[in-house]
Amino acid sequence: MSYASLHAARRARLAAALPEHGVAAVLVTWPVNVRYLTGLSSSNAAVLVGAEGQAMLATDSRYAETAQRQCRDVEVIVDRDVAGALLARAGAAGGLAVEADHMTVAMFGRLGERLGGDPSARLTPVSGLVEAVRAVKDEQEIDALRRACAITDEAFSQVVERIAPGVTEREIARWLEVRMTELGADKPAFDSIVASGPNGSIPHHAPSDRRIRSGDLVTIDFGARYGGYHADMTRTVAVGRPAAWQRDLYELVRQAQQAGCLAVRPGATAHEVDAAARGVIERAGHAEHFEHGLGHGVGLEIHEQPFLGPDRTGRLEDRVPITVEPGVYLPGRGGVRIEDTLVTRDDGPELLTLTTKELLIL
Amino acid sequence: MSYASLHAARRARLAAALPEHGVAAVLVTWPVNVRYLTGLSSSNAAVLVGAEGQAMLATDSRYAETAQRQCRDVEVIVDRDVAGALLARAGAAGGLAVEADHMTVAMFGRLGERLGGDPSARLTPVSGLVEAVRAVKDEQEIDALRRACAITDEAFSQVVERIAPGVTEREIARWLEVRMTELGADKPAFDSIVASGPNGSIPHHAPSDRRIRSGDLVTIDFGARYGGYHADMTRTVAVGRPAAWQRDLYELVRQAQQAGCLAVRPGATAHEVDAAARGVIERAGHAEHFEHGLGHGVGLEIHEQPFLGPDRTGRLEDRVPITVEPGVYLPGRGGVRIEDTLVTRDDGPELLTLTTKELLIL
Repeated sequence: MSYASLHAARRARLAAALPEHGVAAVLVTWPVNVRYLTGLSSSNAAVLVGAEGQAMLATDSRYAETAQRQCRDVEVIVDRDVAGALLARAGAAGGLAVEADHMTVAMFGRLGERLGGDPSARLTPVSGLVEAVRAVKDEQEIDALRRACAITDEAFSQVVERIAPGVTEREIARWLEVRMTELGADKPAFDSIVASGPNGSIPHHAPSDRRIRSGDLVTIDFGARYGGYHADMTRTVAVGRPAAWQRDLYELVRQAQQAGCLAVRPGATAHEVDAAARGVIERAGHAEHFEHGLGHGVGLEIHEQPFLGPDRTGRLEDRVPITVEPGVYLPGRGGVRIEDTLVTRDDGPELLTLTTKELLIL
Repeated sequence: MSYASLHAARRARLAAALPEHGVAAVLVTWPVNVRYLTGLSSSNAAVLVGAEGQAMLATDSRYAETAQRQCRDVEVIVDRDVAGALLARAGAAGGLAVEADHMTVAMFGRLGERLGGDPSARLTPVSGLVEAVRAVKDEQEIDALRRACAITDEAFSQVVERIAPGVTEREIARWLEVRMTELGADKPAFDSIVASGPNGSIPHHAPSDRRIRSGDLVTIDFGARYGGYHADMTRTVAVGRPAAWQRDLYELVRQAQQAGCLAVRPGATAHEVDAAARGVIERAGHAEHFEHGLGHGVGLEIHEQPFLGPDRTGRLEDRVPITVEPGVYLPGRGGVRIEDTLVTRDDGPELLTLTTKELLIL
């Protein structure tokens, strides 16, 4: 499929969702969504997609030449006020959806003024319209994610050998990020987490100057971005001979993670997959030590639809990349988290992060 | 000044701005602004600051331990719905400002429902409230920016020697990013721009696999983030002996950039500083080849208040870090941009990016 028709196909899927919201078009202003629908990567662009999939793209002069070169199948308007320019051109007759979870109160007010008064009369804030389309990936997207995960695996395998007593959390994070970049990543997919010893009880610990000690568990949560797509992997390793409680904790999380992965399939509900992993941890008496959701979609964003958790709804579809990342966190002592990125497939999930989940003892 | 009182001082400056907006408190939900006011770096947190500077911080369980450890001078509430939890605790009596440029339409609606109906009755969307406070930096912030710029300079000096015919734009970007990370950067401040030859006419060109050729001008726009603070520098270099038009173009932009830097002082208007540089380019007949603004504030974000441009208003104050980055872009031929990060000072601007602005011929 050509580059242009790839984006046209995505816009057609979006257009098909418009009637149920009672609108004739949608104004897309979130940069990641604009990129998804047109291919243009820009900090200031918007695209208006009509019910037939027809599209108009607006961006400012900095991106005009790139837009005209790359997005040949859409009309390109050059204006700094991207949303205003599209509204001025297309109007809002027939009802216009806007992105409720991205459009700011200020922009909603400004567009309303353009329409001569109450914005709510013509603009319909809708949540998750493009995100629902994005959740199911085309194979080009999965290829990019597969490569992002391969870079992540390779960086881990090269850096893990250097983890030893005396190195700092920050050094480990830096080594991983440098290796990923050298291996071809656009950049790290997010700020890496390296949490050693007692810091392991903080799920989103920022790497510090704490030096690794023998007897530490070290949780490493990181990933590469490749072609705009985000890998996400966590491994917990032991430095020196682990204590019995550390081995037990690791084994528990490993079983929970495995149960979660086995539950990932088209048709499963977000709650079911979460429960498969969470049940293992609850039965071991650690319910209160696993407070976050089980996982999230990955793609052009590091956290995107769908989300897996006790109070999440919806069913997984085919070709949905998602993370499975249970953890158990013991305040003051440390923690374990194990995370993979997988893709739902009709014939069983495709695992994208391939690093071993055996406990590595360094 | 201690870490806690540093943030308390910032909250006091914010609190002082509340009466003019007719509100008794402000609900801050933008992560960068939450970090600025409390020290907590988190993807899900909010802080409510009252007219006396008193503050309540809400975050979810992932960041709870960090918040309780780091933010000892504010009350910490642990709840995933951070804005809702603060509103439930504090109410909106006396009027509550929300961040118009950050709060989404969806969140505004949800908070309105909590208040029992029309959100506009109790919530006052205000633009740029915290941003105006952030524009003037304390010396701790300028120290972080100075270090970010020093890393940027050093990375440039090490990488520039490797630029030669045959290397790709993407390689140059990668080398810079790796060196910055090794030199202690948190990460690159933004996606680096490397635009060679004809690509130089695209102000925000993404690095491609194009190989550098002798006779190219190469524009490199990049920077390091250090301690959360963003450096921003651009240099254009020549590979091989530059043609006369390339030398002339470079000299023109250099003079414009110098004129802009000389105009940076407390009390200058955003328009005046822009005009100082733009006038040089206009008088050379290139007005239509310089379409973007002259510069922007830098700090916890790469683009922040104040902005310099023909239609920008407001005056610079003391201790405002800002970029000066004129460019001339000739479609199909190439371009030149030169950019420094400076800080306004009463006794003349402090230059933070120190790399030479002589035309480097490689």
